[in-house]
Amino acid sequence: MSNQRQPIGIVGCGIIGASWARAFLRAGHPVVVHDPSADLAALREAVAEAWDAGRLTHADRIESLACCVYVQESIVEDAAAKRALFETLDAILPAETVVASSTSALCMSDLVPDLAGRARFLVAHPASPPHALPAVEIVPAPFTAPDSVARAEDILCAIGQTPVRLNREVRGFVLNRLQAAMLMEMIGLVRDGIVSAEGVDALMRDSFGMRWAIMGPFAGVHLNAPGGIADYFARYAPMFDGFCADGETLADRLPPDTLDALQAHATARVPLEDIAARRAWRDDALVGLRDWRAGVAS
Amino acid sequence: MSNQRQPIGIVGCGIIGASWARAFLRAGHPVVVHDPSADLAALREAVAEAWDAGRLTHADRIESLACCVYVQESIVEDAAAKRALFETLDAILPAETVVASSTSALCMSDLVPDLAGRARFLVAHPASPPHALPAVEIVPAPFTAPDSVARAEDILCAIGQTPVRLNREVRGFVLNRLQAAMLMEMIGLVRDGIVSAEGVDALMRDSFGMRWAIMGPFAGVHLNAPGGIADYFARYAPMFDGFCADGETLADRLPPDTLDALQAHATARVPLEDIAARRAWRDDALVGLRDWRAGVAS
Repeated sequence: MSNQRQPIGIVGCGIIGASWARAFLRAGHPVVVHDPSADLAALREAVAEAWDAGRLTHADRIESLACCVYVQESIVEDAAAKRALFETLDAILPAETVVASSTSALCMSDLVPDLAGRARFLVAHPASPPHALPAVEIVPAPFTAPDSVARAEDILCAIGQTPVRLNREVRGFVLNRLQAAMLMEMIGLVRDGIVSAEGVDALMRDSFGMRWAIMGPFAGVHLNAPGGIADYFARYAPMFDGFCADGETLADRLPPDTLDALQAHATARVPLEDIAARRAWRDDALVGLRDWRAGVAS
Repeated sequence: MSNQRQPIGIVGCGIIGASWARAFLRAGHPVVVHDPSADLAALREAVAEAWDAGRLTHADRIESLACCVYVQESIVEDAAAKRALFETLDAILPAETVVASSTSALCMSDLVPDLAGRARFLVAHPASPPHALPAVEIVPAPFTAPDSVARAEDILCAIGQTPVRLNREVRGFVLNRLQAAMLMEMIGLVRDGIVSAEGVDALMRDSFGMRWAIMGPFAGVHLNAPGGIADYFARYAPMFDGFCADGETLADRLPPDTLDALQAHATARVPLEDIAARRAWRDDALVGLRDWRAGVAS
């Protein structure tokens, strides 16, 4: 199967670009890197450890990317620089090549609305570093072709990533918002003198960090009540209401159709009659994670 | 060393109590369980798999707990029931025995303010289940003796848990607040049609879940800027400000002394000159976690 992998282009080969290169090489793709300032020795050392560095090509000329079916851009987070690069790429790449940006904040609607090939452009913002963390948020512009999104998702799934499509462009996308929500809550707890910075970090690491590494938060609380996630929110609504400083209630935030969507998601994976068995599976997995982690020097 | 472990009492042996029993037995403690309604067959089966069930005693009479240096209460989450139990325990236990409650929401200030031995009572709320997740939040009442807190922390540390002391009683403690903050953000993203419930769960599981299982969120962002966590918040303040719907800014939430505390915490573990090396360590650990997880059937 590896022999059938098609060439992937990487433009910008700093921490993120080099990590992308590792992820694609590991899965058997030939990779063409274009970055005039790349530290090629460091890159080759990074990928040579475990993968066939012979499939890594460094292209001095950007035109060499024309053989690629997919180009992952990871240059500096600067709108003008990205815009200039995308103009060039749009001019030299075959029409069917998808261009994905690793940007964590910029939107394609602002970068390439007027390019002839704008339908091939989208954001594929990875958790960092992508060779270690599978999550990738896929953010199409309104003008991005559904086929471009589908091909990006197929390529990323095939190398073991987890592409997740956002339905529309939103400031900070989703990953940054999730992290910010947690950090803001933690900051408030430290600021208010409730717990130390060390303490709240340790609590997160040794509870929800481990649990959410095994399953997402919604899937997790689905196991915490006999009737699943809908039952969970019904039981604990007063607690949630008590946490909301600004008077917002859980019901304000969680309208019935959203609750239905959560219950549908959770029960599709774990029907109510399987909750106890799934909880036992999770707990065994967590014991395994605890044992695995004990072997990793910190 | 196991031979020197002192007896531990468990009152209430449902999911949480049984998990506590496993954690203490695994570390070599003799354990005395008191629960008139306990499913002893299930409990013995759970602990017999890997540990010496011979050190587990079921006591029909609560007075049998008098040999214990520490009692972990895990009965039903009902204030009146806990109050009645604590009265009995206070009457029969030696003065030096610490009583810790697994309650996730009740405060000792409300439960035992008038008991003669109130100084021995505190909350030790575990992440669930405690035999798999190390985090335990320790919540003393104002009348809890510092020595009781210290002895509880020593006992829990010695069995491999991570006790974290809260400086004062606060509604929902810390663990519930952290989870609620994440769930409320995720609910908002689903409600607003930005991402599906499945999608946001997958993003969390395959990014921050993994990362926070290795190190806490503060320790994590400390690695994301050359100047550490203070530099991180300086660089990304506009992004945080953009997420705050109610006009609160990051600066409002993060006063200078709190920022100093965060930087002190982070640099004590990882000095600025070690950030790059620590990031490389983290990335290797994450690759290891990804590989480990691939071997756990989901």
